[in-house]
Amino acid sequence: MRELIEMLFARYLKNPHLNTQADAVSLPVAQQSELLFTTDGFTVQPLEFPGGNIGSLAVHGTTNDLAVSGATPKYLSLNAFIEEGFEVAILERIIQSIADTAKAIDVAVVAGDTKVVRRGEGGGIYLATTGIGFKDPRIQIGMKQIRPGDKLLVSGPVGDHGISVMLAREQFGLRGDLLSDAASILPFTQALLDLTGLHFMRDPTRGGLATVAHEICRATGLQVNLNQAAIPIRDPVNSVCEMLGYDPLFLACEGRVVAVVDADQADQALALWRSQPGGDFAAMIGETKQAEPYVVLHTELGGARILEELEDDPLPRIC
Amino acid sequence: MRELIEMLFARYLKNPHLNTQADAVSLPVAQQSELLFTTDGFTVQPLEFPGGNIGSLAVHGTTNDLAVSGATPKYLSLNAFIEEGFEVAILERIIQSIADTAKAIDVAVVAGDTKVVRRGEGGGIYLATTGIGFKDPRIQIGMKQIRPGDKLLVSGPVGDHGISVMLAREQFGLRGDLLSDAASILPFTQALLDLTGLHFMRDPTRGGLATVAHEICRATGLQVNLNQAAIPIRDPVNSVCEMLGYDPLFLACEGRVVAVVDADQADQALALWRSQPGGDFAAMIGETKQAEPYVVLHTELGGARILEELEDDPLPRIC
Repeated sequence: MRELIEMLFARYLKNPHLNTQADAVSLPVAQQSELLFTTDGFTVQPLEFPGGNIGSLAVHGTTNDLAVSGATPKYLSLNAFIEEGFEVAILERIIQSIADTAKAIDVAVVAGDTKVVRRGEGGGIYLATTGIGFKDPRIQIGMKQIRPGDKLLVSGPVGDHGISVMLAREQFGLRGDLLSDAASILPFTQALLDLTGLHFMRDPTRGGLATVAHEICRATGLQVNLNQAAIPIRDPVNSVCEMLGYDPLFLACEGRVVAVVDADQADQALALWRSQPGGDFAAMIGETKQAEPYVVLHTELGGARILEELEDDPLPRIC
Repeated sequence: MRELIEMLFARYLKNPHLNTQADAVSLPVAQQSELLFTTDGFTVQPLEFPGGNIGSLAVHGTTNDLAVSGATPKYLSLNAFIEEGFEVAILERIIQSIADTAKAIDVAVVAGDTKVVRRGEGGGIYLATTGIGFKDPRIQIGMKQIRPGDKLLVSGPVGDHGISVMLAREQFGLRGDLLSDAASILPFTQALLDLTGLHFMRDPTRGGLATVAHEICRATGLQVNLNQAAIPIRDPVNSVCEMLGYDPLFLACEGRVVAVVDADQADQALALWRSQPGGDFAAMIGETKQAEPYVVLHTELGGARILEELEDDPLPRIC
């Protein structure tokens, strides 16, 4: 089993940096650049879902975290914990998906390790990816840059990933042709990096758009106002949420970005996003305000209510 | 459970680089240095054993891989997959051990992620660590530097880790006071970095000393001759191996180094190791030779036999 697994990883992930004979790999460092580093673990169930699988998710998840930091992802390490007896055909699809996804966004998997665990342990496969990216040090974005009056933008409809994975679990007997939004957000983050008014970016994964709003609120002490009518949500996502009592604002996305931009440059940022492939539904969805630090949702009927923080994760094992 | 876990990790692993609010962390890059990168997963059973636990092992394993590459380890990312209902006291000991171990060798855990998996999955806890280290580019070591006539050295007795973990499993009804050798090998690797005759280093983990010898043999096409009488092995390790039919040369170490050194500087290298704390049993154990690419073991009785490659892992889940 061990040999088969190593052979599969080696076959699909071959690249000039990956040397399976060395203890550590030497990586060129981009000159005059800031090195960014991040890691994430993946236990999504089911392992394959419409629009992706745990492999593509593991590449997108970590490279997207580098992207929202203003960096260009370059290198990944990959750890796999594989259950003994795991179906080889599924493993091969997952590894191929890792390879294809990495290639598409020009990152190299340069270090890896696999462990086989006892049958019954390990849930099939868990993955962990750690990423290195490089950033122009002149780009200064982060929570601290956010100012009152800044605009919030989202790059596309929210909740597709959460609902797609949930439907793939088939526990509610519901079906649909919705796809996960799992994708690289690098084209969207890079589109804004030249804007001096870009203050902050984050991908709304676990906990969704609402949780990003709460994080902004907590870190800045500002009020975040969201305009419900402006938030793009696909009809099937709304329908399933209504049926099952979920709030789409709390559902995970795996291919969206929220940006906080100076009001003066918000229209420009929105135009840049809309001109991207897949950017048709990008929208300006709210703003920060010097007021009580709540997340306030302005409803379509003209009302306003405080959006509470998520207490429990409504959909565990979503990434 | 999730909050408790995050609180524990945050409490023990706090450091100036670890920012739990950011998507990625910015790391200073050592100037004029080569960046080395490596990763490893850990599923050792039992999670705690005499001389260490999965936490200390996860720090040593990855930083030791950087050390044998000639680098000074600086930063780690940490992924934990934790089974729901995992005992909090054990988790806390493991995290504390990660923190203490990292502190002792001056590496910072700068990025992390935890995932909770269903009860029954996950074997208690699995860890993955990915490390960044920096190396003086003038240090040129690797399999390609090995020459015929080079000497092989080992930094201490072999097999302690393998036997300690096996005894801790209690499956054979054996007990002993042997400790795992799990430790940082950085003092040993750094001691040799000024030697121009240092050609290669590797830590004999899974598959043990014999497997390192086979790797050298395969990569260089040289014959590796090992002198059995010279290889340091503790009495309890020999006793248990005799009883259960294991060969100590194939048992995992987690705190030893094998170095391949030019014959002219081998005595000097050995003296440098013996002057290190814990280096009393360092030994010169063999040499490379321009001959058929086998690993040849010269026995204490004056005979010689070919040491075959390991087919099955005699002790799975050893790291």
